[in-house]
Amino acid sequence: MQALVLQGGQLTYQAHWQRPEPGPGEALIRVSLAGICSTDLEMVKGYAGGFNGVLGHEFVGVVEQTGSPEQMEWVGRRVVGTINLGCGRCAVCLGDGPEHCPQRTTLGIHNRDGVFADRVTLPIVNLLEVPYPVSDEEAVFTEPLAAALRIHEQVLIRPTARIAVVGPGRLGLLAAQVLALGAGDVIVLGRRSNALALPAQLGLKTGLVDQQLDDAFDLVVEATGNDAGFAHSLRLVRPRGTLVLKSTFHGQANINLTKLVVGEVTVVGSRCGPFAPALRLLELSATADEKLRAGAGIQVKPMIEAEYPLRNGLDAFEHAARPGARKILLQPN
Amino acid sequence: MQALVLQGGQLTYQAHWQRPEPGPGEALIRVSLAGICSTDLEMVKGYAGGFNGVLGHEFVGVVEQTGSPEQMEWVGRRVVGTINLGCGRCAVCLGDGPEHCPQRTTLGIHNRDGVFADRVTLPIVNLLEVPYPVSDEEAVFTEPLAAALRIHEQVLIRPTARIAVVGPGRLGLLAAQVLALGAGDVIVLGRRSNALALPAQLGLKTGLVDQQLDDAFDLVVEATGNDAGFAHSLRLVRPRGTLVLKSTFHGQANINLTKLVVGEVTVVGSRCGPFAPALRLLELSATADEKLRAGAGIQVKPMIEAEYPLRNGLDAFEHAARPGARKILLQPN
Repeated sequence: MQALVLQGGQLTYQAHWQRPEPGPGEALIRVSLAGICSTDLEMVKGYAGGFNGVLGHEFVGVVEQTGSPEQMEWVGRRVVGTINLGCGRCAVCLGDGPEHCPQRTTLGIHNRDGVFADRVTLPIVNLLEVPYPVSDEEAVFTEPLAAALRIHEQVLIRPTARIAVVGPGRLGLLAAQVLALGAGDVIVLGRRSNALALPAQLGLKTGLVDQQLDDAFDLVVEATGNDAGFAHSLRLVRPRGTLVLKSTFHGQANINLTKLVVGEVTVVGSRCGPFAPALRLLELSATADEKLRAGAGIQVKPMIEAEYPLRNGLDAFEHAARPGARKILLQPN
Repeated sequence: MQALVLQGGQLTYQAHWQRPEPGPGEALIRVSLAGICSTDLEMVKGYAGGFNGVLGHEFVGVVEQTGSPEQMEWVGRRVVGTINLGCGRCAVCLGDGPEHCPQRTTLGIHNRDGVFADRVTLPIVNLLEVPYPVSDEEAVFTEPLAAALRIHEQVLIRPTARIAVVGPGRLGLLAAQVLALGAGDVIVLGRRSNALALPAQLGLKTGLVDQQLDDAFDLVVEATGNDAGFAHSLRLVRPRGTLVLKSTFHGQANINLTKLVVGEVTVVGSRCGPFAPALRLLELSATADEKLRAGAGIQVKPMIEAEYPLRNGLDAFEHAARPGARKILLQPN
């Protein structure tokens, strides 16, 4: 089968890669669409600790085969899948789930082949069926949308909260749309005005980050992953406010912690989120009429910039790495 | 009157300093005892933005005079006082209180003369009367004890929580004692075993910080204020755990934020706390019999290393700055 493979820090397109076999409890999934996210780009840059294997973790696909005959009813189902696989036996797995299991593998990120390939295997317990009104182009956003929804699991947000999302990128726009559902006053902040066209098109309030006053927001979501974004975010959050770190930082960050302590700011690291509500939100957004959608749903299709066949995956990566690039999708089949 | 005065970054003893006059709503207080804390030491080092005036904010004293005749009943009362003075009119003051008012002054720290002097003035709304069983040597700990109790206002702590306090210094020992009241499993961690004698004497569990396993604690309280202490604290807190920053950091800290995001750690800046519960806790600890005290109270007197007359204040500062020094008190009168 075809695959985009990271080996020794080098991403290559492989036309004849070994097709995986589903083990007991696993499904073999034909990948319909996959999405490139910033984590993939960072891994290709070598920032994520030497992963070797098939890259990619955002996908929608169809179950083709199951490793256990008693789970045959999954064959033919259109699915998305959660990306963390825990040991299922440790205190972390039993208490919090697999996301923080010390023994975990993570799809296309850590010790488990990912989805930039014709086929992928995942345990059936990781799968969720996609409701029919949700298209593949929408369903492929389930994983990052779940990550955006994770904020609501971690932080109590008042409907009157003043909220800023710093970074108008792929994840920032999902976070902003999700936060706007709570009827808070949400603004997407960027460094340059041309990066704010898409959030404005999505109906979001926008602004330039360096024109915002200090201490102006109750909740700030940092979605840039760089030092300058963190510094702005800390500057913008009010004393006793909350700063959510939604992007992974790599390496050492040089950070002024004085405001954090003196201002009694709470900083919350935020990673993977709940798939089921993400799918429900995509379904709601797909079925609501225009009027409802403007207020109660989210829009993901305008965030798609291009779709590439998997064989042109290296071009797709080059495209996704351009400043301001929106979501780039890969079509393996 | 006498005073220890910081001017242009230089701390001097002044034998003939201008005695303050209480304005309307204020009290003139004769300072009985004052405590030197790490913030004072940092300010003398020049880390806190150019304060000029009488230093000091931990005190117990007796009201001698009031600026408003209708508040004469305060004269003769033994008091402690909260250290932040807000404008009383802005949204922050009306919502959260004076601690984060952008216009605030802070006793002996920011735009308001402090307590290392024979006399000090404070608004009467900032004062709390000290209950009679609490001695001056205990009452002078009210301010740092309140800061330790602030943790309970910010973080929900389960009685089964595994808790580490990194830094066996003055504030760390108060934090550890307060946290141990909640029946959590609390350990005080230091870099050298000789720094752990006092916490052991206080009945606290102790350990060397570099011998603790990664991810071993649900709650970590950082009480060193230095980069190495922060790095250890982040290393020790479990995924989805909480890291409380109880010491102010100065300047830029070089910090690896990857674990914070990937491990979904919550970091909480923590500063001034509630005085009334601190006084109640000191009263309980002073009146409980030995048996009760071991389990239900805290001990502050063993934390006192020396008392100096105010005229020897510069020696007292030199003493307080020695590594491992416990609380140094000043007697102005």
